[in-house]
Amino acid sequence: MKSHHSRCLTFLGFLSFLILAQSATMRCQEASPTLMPLPAHMVMGQGQFIVDGNLTVEIQGYSDARLVAGKKRFLNVLYRETGIPLEGAIAPPHQANFLIKAAGAGSSVQQLSENESYRLEVSKTGVLLSAPNPLGVLHGLQTFLQLVELTPQGFVAPAVTVDDEARFPWRGLMIDSGRHFMPVTAITRNLDGMEAVKMNVFHWHLSDDQGFRVESKVFPLLQGKGSNGQFYTQKQIGEVVQYARERGIRVVPEFDMPCHTTSWQAGYPQLASGKGPYAIADRWGVLDPAIDPTREGTYQFLDKFIGEMAALFPDAYFHIGGDECDGKEWDANPRIKAFMRAHGMKDNAALQSYFTAGVQKLVAGHHKIMEGWDEVLQPDTPRDVVIQSWRGEKALAVAARQGNRVLLSNGYYIDLNQPAAEHYLVDPLGGDGGSLTPEQKARVLGGEATMWSEYVTGENMDSRIWPRTAAIAERLWSPENVRDVDSMYDRLAVVSQRLQYFGLEHESSPRLMLERIGGGEAPEPLKVLAAVVQPPRGYMRGEMREYHTFTPLNRLTDAVLPESETARKFNSLVQLIVAGKATEKQWQEAREWLALWRDNDRKLQPLLAASDLAAELVPVSHDLSAAAAIGLKALDDLENHRAPNADKSMETLEAAAKPQAVLLDMVVPSVQLLVKAAGAQN
Amino acid sequence: MKSHHSRCLTFLGFLSFLILAQSATMRCQEASPTLMPLPAHMVMGQGQFIVDGNLTVEIQGYSDARLVAGKKRFLNVLYRETGIPLEGAIAPPHQANFLIKAAGAGSSVQQLSENESYRLEVSKTGVLLSAPNPLGVLHGLQTFLQLVELTPQGFVAPAVTVDDEARFPWRGLMIDSGRHFMPVTAITRNLDGMEAVKMNVFHWHLSDDQGFRVESKVFPLLQGKGSNGQFYTQKQIGEVVQYARERGIRVVPEFDMPCHTTSWQAGYPQLASGKGPYAIADRWGVLDPAIDPTREGTYQFLDKFIGEMAALFPDAYFHIGGDECDGKEWDANPRIKAFMRAHGMKDNAALQSYFTAGVQKLVAGHHKIMEGWDEVLQPDTPRDVVIQSWRGEKALAVAARQGNRVLLSNGYYIDLNQPAAEHYLVDPLGGDGGSLTPEQKARVLGGEATMWSEYVTGENMDSRIWPRTAAIAERLWSPENVRDVDSMYDRLAVVSQRLQYFGLEHESSPRLMLERIGGGEAPEPLKVLAAVVQPPRGYMRGEMREYHTFTPLNRLTDAVLPESETARKFNSLVQLIVAGKATEKQWQEAREWLALWRDNDRKLQPLLAASDLAAELVPVSHDLSAAAAIGLKALDDLENHRAPNADKSMETLEAAAKPQAVLLDMVVPSVQLLVKAAGAQN
Repeated sequence: MKSHHSRCLTFLGFLSFLILAQSATMRCQEASPTLMPLPAHMVMGQGQFIVDGNLTVEIQGYSDARLVAGKKRFLNVLYRETGIPLEGAIAPPHQANFLIKAAGAGSSVQQLSENESYRLEVSKTGVLLSAPNPLGVLHGLQTFLQLVELTPQGFVAPAVTVDDEARFPWRGLMIDSGRHFMPVTAITRNLDGMEAVKMNVFHWHLSDDQGFRVESKVFPLLQGKGSNGQFYTQKQIGEVVQYARERGIRVVPEFDMPCHTTSWQAGYPQLASGKGPYAIADRWGVLDPAIDPTREGTYQFLDKFIGEMAALFPDAYFHIGGDECDGKEWDANPRIKAFMRAHGMKDNAALQSYFTAGVQKLVAGHHKIMEGWDEVLQPDTPRDVVIQSWRGEKALAVAARQGNRVLLSNGYYIDLNQPAAEHYLVDPLGGDGGSLTPEQKARVLGGEATMWSEYVTGENMDSRIWPRTAAIAERLWSPENVRDVDSMYDRLAVVSQRLQYFGLEHESSPRLMLERIGGGEAPEPLKVLAAVVQPPRGYMRGEMREYHTFTPLNRLTDAVLPESETARKFNSLVQLIVAGKATEKQWQEAREWLALWRDNDRKLQPLLAASDLAAELVPVSHDLSAAAAIGLKALDDLENHRAPNADKSMETLEAAAKPQAVLLDMVVPSVQLLVKAAGAQN
Repeated sequence: MKSHHSRCLTFLGFLSFLILAQSATMRCQEASPTLMPLPAHMVMGQGQFIVDGNLTVEIQGYSDARLVAGKKRFLNVLYRETGIPLEGAIAPPHQANFLIKAAGAGSSVQQLSENESYRLEVSKTGVLLSAPNPLGVLHGLQTFLQLVELTPQGFVAPAVTVDDEARFPWRGLMIDSGRHFMPVTAITRNLDGMEAVKMNVFHWHLSDDQGFRVESKVFPLLQGKGSNGQFYTQKQIGEVVQYARERGIRVVPEFDMPCHTTSWQAGYPQLASGKGPYAIADRWGVLDPAIDPTREGTYQFLDKFIGEMAALFPDAYFHIGGDECDGKEWDANPRIKAFMRAHGMKDNAALQSYFTAGVQKLVAGHHKIMEGWDEVLQPDTPRDVVIQSWRGEKALAVAARQGNRVLLSNGYYIDLNQPAAEHYLVDPLGGDGGSLTPEQKARVLGGEATMWSEYVTGENMDSRIWPRTAAIAERLWSPENVRDVDSMYDRLAVVSQRLQYFGLEHESSPRLMLERIGGGEAPEPLKVLAAVVQPPRGYMRGEMREYHTFTPLNRLTDAVLPESETARKFNSLVQLIVAGKATEKQWQEAREWLALWRDNDRKLQPLLAASDLAAELVPVSHDLSAAAAIGLKALDDLENHRAPNADKSMETLEAAAKPQAVLLDMVVPSVQLLVKAAGAQN
């Protein structure tokens, strides 16, 4: 265990010195290395393997381009982690001390059910990574990268034997390139992040009301009139698919239909249920445009289109969306209403069902298995169709009982600014899923984090996806009983730092955005404020301010992280204090934090007026200061066992708890706890 | 001037709050926008142009792919600066308010003497950028990007008319890919940085003893045995050349010969003057291997090789190196000695001259103009050969007097960790250059910053090049009388922040390297130490520690910036104090800095033991603390007009001034000043 104890001495970052004792204690209680996702089985060994310039990796036995590329990528990330050059080394040749053994090839197109297991044996003298096929090797290499740590003896990996396999075969991340176009580099660096945490499905939401993002050669007006020039060429798509394959990731394209289709209808109004003309949407929300399910021409168009896309995306699955039809264009079209009557369709759901059944046949005709959101499920939906549940565990259970395979996304909506812990504790087999029979449970394939992009651009997307998605990745990979939230947060911080070595910008981009808000530099008081606010949760944001598709996302709400780590840690302190379990040191830490926030407003206010982007923060900064002062008073009252005088504190805090400048002050709930505890002393 | 006064309120960065008053004052004294390089002519207008989502750029009249790409890149950087989406906007069409007018095309291969001038007119209502050809447009776009600033009214560019042209036609940056291979992305992002500051020559040092970095199809063992697999493919070379062309940058390749050629000789020992066998060098310094100038086969080989490379690099100039021949292999080879005697060559310089003359004919035969370091200049060197002077202004003047064109690099060696001010004040026409006749002066083409890479990798290269190279760029572009060092430093800080928007990693990479040294996080006390140390200047580094080509460059000396901004500012304070010109506030600031450093060691020491990379910092941290304590005492003595007691302060400081852990403590010289001033009170 020696090598792990050294972690207790690990440096602590900016402003976290206040919680040094707490954090170090937590680290020392860990019995295992900082892995995420945690492996299925792990046995610690004796001693450690030194990672230095002598590390030499050899692929023994079966080899292929994916293994060779994986090895090269591994050496490159290991170089970034350690600074030790491992590629192009000119050390005298010696026996490899890191052996990779894959038993054989993987499928030429990665399959849903492919074996992803691996065995990683690290001893003092060498490393052996073995797996049935390259997928397991890729996963094992990521595990090794996470094992490496800096110690007084240099970089080492502790001796350990890991026998690992995934709990669920479908561990996805969806990125919405429809609403905000995401540059190819933003996609590829997130594929690197996915590989780092063993996710294996990139679900690419490629069309929506606000944009159609793939070049179609058969129907060039799709991108021609539906994208403002912001689309992926077929060459780029091919490169992304290959990039993903090299990382053990399938790419499932989604073309959302019959609704969310304004961008299609801009170039091909003959698909529409309404009169048009159509232009790509410049606002968010559930919009009316819908494809006309009653015309034969619709299916002829879609047959050709799906055929073109089926060739571009080799994966066996093809996502046709199917969510959120408001039916207004159908209701308003007498011809469609007549069609429904003639065919005995009692409502729009029946019409959509008719459409979905037609599309399913087209998809199957192109040798793909259809996937769709909850809405596509009907009693007669073919059993091979995969349902992605955005509605929740109940809908998931319905699908599984009906005999369809299903994924959970409800609970994994990372655009909604929920804490990692909330996502982490959502289990595809929790809730109603828990009551399924073993046969039905086997139909639950896994889940997908969804990065919807109304309020996200390529600039800040990484900070919305990471590190929280690593917690979801653990839920989907690791055994069901891995549910310790404190351990998760502890490891998440380490993983977050390391994800930077993969080129992700979740830490660097918020910093640069703060500099922009500061007019070229980010002064310390602005950083102090930024560390304790976060964007509001759920769907409130669109109600707070008018957002169009081209509204600049350059305010503090866009720059700060979706979960305030500082506020979370402060809340832990406060929980201990009100429970009467805090040490004197923890009392002092709480006081220091509150004093920092109380005094911050005075330093920050003079700076806010100079920046058009910061001016809206005047009340936010003021209220943080006011709340902190109240918190200090409450701490005093608690320490002196003195009932507080009646005052307006709770009203002040209630006001401060409300969003301002599209930001929530995450310190306020903790202060409210303190004030309540002080008041309860009566 | 209103828009510039708003800069006085610009936020100040971390730890610089101590110098708030000073810095703000300096900013307010500026009468012009923060441009670098400063333009030849600039007249401020009234009001400002608002940069918002309505900005629409139109190329009127002549257009070509380079202009279109330049416009796209401009909009992208402007987006990064402001967060305002400007590409793919769906605002209703309106008249363009930013017009680009190029009178005509540029050369199909960019020429040395091409016109680079432009005129940029910014008014309240619009922007007009006009130029004789696309090169001027590219420069003008960069000027506009620098004009944009954040104000209470949003992002604006002040009304101004800029008439601008370059002082020197050759403004280069050399990158040494030979000693440490630099990934293509490291090259391309530095080309973006060059464009930002109007540099126009990328001199690519592509071969050296430690590596041959270009794929040769004619002689594949050059990279095959000379690179350990770390070389650029011809396809990559072509992409870099195109990338540079789009940015108004010529690419001049250098293949260093007849010495620095170990890597050639590894694959082609028939070129060698010695017996071999050869393997690429794993150490630095001036090594013995040299090409054999006496064999006909050498020239046959070089003719084919130069022919292949001349086709790959379209620029009219071809650099053959020619520096630092120690001649030992020639001396040791009886056949070569006999040849020299037979041809009446009195020394190795004569032999090299013979070689150079032969190579010059080959280069000319492939329709290129030869360039070489000082050593290639001989009395009979053809007049079109361009000399790059690493030896200094005297050598430069010799070449110009002899009738050759010449570049200055001495003084611009950015690998030597000199302050920006030192580079800035070196003028190609300064020193001996000042005594040249107008005709001779016209032969001085400009200069080149040289990024030699013994102690630099792709990871930390940006932080060595930027921002200091921007000061050299200004020297080479702006009028000779632009020499105000304070103004330069003031603008350099702004430029440095903005260069991040071009993807440069000079600020992010040091941060990440500090995190690595910290074992995953960079604690505040480590940052405090890092901010005041720098690598030793000049060539001392190789004497302090044994470095091989694959020695990890992952220590603090590799992570910190080559010029400590904090120490520089502290020194300014101390200069004021010892001159009796400091305000009470400045005295207080100096005290606060010293107290911070004095108390830092106590916080940092417990953390250093946990990291193999940080352990060497124990004495560095201790000595900073000791020096700061001495400084505080000296401040007290000065304030109280009290002669200090005799003590060991100066000895302590002398010891602390010496490099430790390959780092210089840059606070110590300022403390020495204080102690001397206190002592002088007797």
